[in-house]
Amino acid sequence: MDLLDRIRARDTRATARALTLVENGDEPMLAALDAAHAALPHPERIGVTGPPGAGKSTLTSALIKHLRGAGKRVGVVAVDPSSPFSGGALLGDRLRMTEHALDPDVFVRSMASRGRFGGLAIGAHDACDVLALAGFDPVIVETVGVGQSEVDIARLADTTVVVLTPSAGDSVQALKAGIMEIADVVAINKADQPGAARLEEDVREALELRPHGAGPHWQPPVVRSVATKGEGVAALADAIAQHRAFLEANNVMSQVRATRAKARLVDLAGEALLKAVSASPLFERVSGQVSAGTLSPRAAVSELLRTLGV
Amino acid sequence: MDLLDRIRARDTRATARALTLVENGDEPMLAALDAAHAALPHPERIGVTGPPGAGKSTLTSALIKHLRGAGKRVGVVAVDPSSPFSGGALLGDRLRMTEHALDPDVFVRSMASRGRFGGLAIGAHDACDVLALAGFDPVIVETVGVGQSEVDIARLADTTVVVLTPSAGDSVQALKAGIMEIADVVAINKADQPGAARLEEDVREALELRPHGAGPHWQPPVVRSVATKGEGVAALADAIAQHRAFLEANNVMSQVRATRAKARLVDLAGEALLKAVSASPLFERVSGQVSAGTLSPRAAVSELLRTLGV
Repeated sequence: MDLLDRIRARDTRATARALTLVENGDEPMLAALDAAHAALPHPERIGVTGPPGAGKSTLTSALIKHLRGAGKRVGVVAVDPSSPFSGGALLGDRLRMTEHALDPDVFVRSMASRGRFGGLAIGAHDACDVLALAGFDPVIVETVGVGQSEVDIARLADTTVVVLTPSAGDSVQALKAGIMEIADVVAINKADQPGAARLEEDVREALELRPHGAGPHWQPPVVRSVATKGEGVAALADAIAQHRAFLEANNVMSQVRATRAKARLVDLAGEALLKAVSASPLFERVSGQVSAGTLSPRAAVSELLRTLGV
Repeated sequence: MDLLDRIRARDTRATARALTLVENGDEPMLAALDAAHAALPHPERIGVTGPPGAGKSTLTSALIKHLRGAGKRVGVVAVDPSSPFSGGALLGDRLRMTEHALDPDVFVRSMASRGRFGGLAIGAHDACDVLALAGFDPVIVETVGVGQSEVDIARLADTTVVVLTPSAGDSVQALKAGIMEIADVVAINKADQPGAARLEEDVREALELRPHGAGPHWQPPVVRSVATKGEGVAALADAIAQHRAFLEANNVMSQVRATRAKARLVDLAGEALLKAVSASPLFERVSGQVSAGTLSPRAAVSELLRTLGV
């Protein structure tokens, strides 16, 4: 497929085309990308997540600007959660990144979920591969943290930045609820608003309560930013680079990649298995029996699995 | 298992215990419930969903009060999305239903997600079965619409009420984004706030654009409410009852049940299949190869499926 060669040659239109194919689950495209797996570059991957309204897109846009200043080519996969309620608000978010629209060394792609069963993560993973092939480094995965599946996406990254803001009333609740567990770096955005000092204190406290694993220990830095003014962005880039250095110095990167590979396989296998089940003629029959009340749901599943040889 | 008999005898503690077991995925409990499948009552199921802050819990609480006045025993499954960011806010929501805490004919249970792959829906489905067994009718499933999986939960119901409010800035966006497709009844809550008339107009317009299917046509009524004052609640109950009558008069109920059975089987099968895959010794090996770059992700999945005989 010469599309891959054109992507490698940094042809923007080819990259855009490939991302659309990937998003639509186009089989030949996915097969070609899969065949190129061993030769894919491994760009730095940065995840940016946080509650709605935290200013993630504005901060990402400021981060892109900073990284461009350092001569980097930046790819962004902005994952829209599939919520019918929040669609519009997020579209507005994306518009905040248009300042880079004419820069050929910045590529921003919004993606919506396709299908279920890890579909969101599957698509984002494939999109990252396309951007890697196109020579973008770093690749930023931005997603709003509105559900577990969306938070999972942040884990596609080597370094996950959690963006919080004093104006979001439930930030402190977020800390308690365990979001701190996925943070490698915490950005307190809109830090010129009242409550920033208090939030930072709370965040630091929550971070100290994180369980220490057996391996080398990383203490997530807390950075204050005002994305709209570009303040704190250099410090954020610095914190991300420090985490990257930590991963490389302590040989943790291979673990990060192994965990990611497993999660991806589970998602892909789930998708493929479900496709096989739903397409089996037995499925129509047993689901009819379940809705008629003559077969129980779990007995039906056992019958399906037995037929599939699982 | 005599726990089921105690639930049938309307023992509140037994019902609470069973719901906890179900939420924890306790195998003996799930097997017992499954064995009782054919004999389960079919209470009316009402879904209540909408964006955060729409007043769903307050409206549900007012609806419970109204239904209690009509002598009904009301069960509620309030599904918390698994988002680490929104946990706190939702807990607050639930507190709004405590006015019924001492009424033995009202049972409210909050559930969080367990696991992935439809885990949220699986648990909610089982919880509805427990409440059905305990003689609650209707059973209300309340969930915040923050992600596709949460919206899916509304589809566990015969009648889905979408709650919108003029104060939520993106309500109109929600309409465009297709939330209207799942609504059988629309409640415009906080209707005493500015913008209610405009929102109602927008909602009616969006509802008229709904594609008509081949079967009998239902035009979702739009009800204005002020849940905190109990206003519009009788009209809402009325609209729900009308939809119920429509389902029964047109023989649509069997279709609704069949669709629900299929969705449930897909969720259960997905869960079981993934368990089987992740536990296979092959999984460790191929995921290691993927992360080492010696095997591509989709080739690894093919190998897994081949071994499972799928």
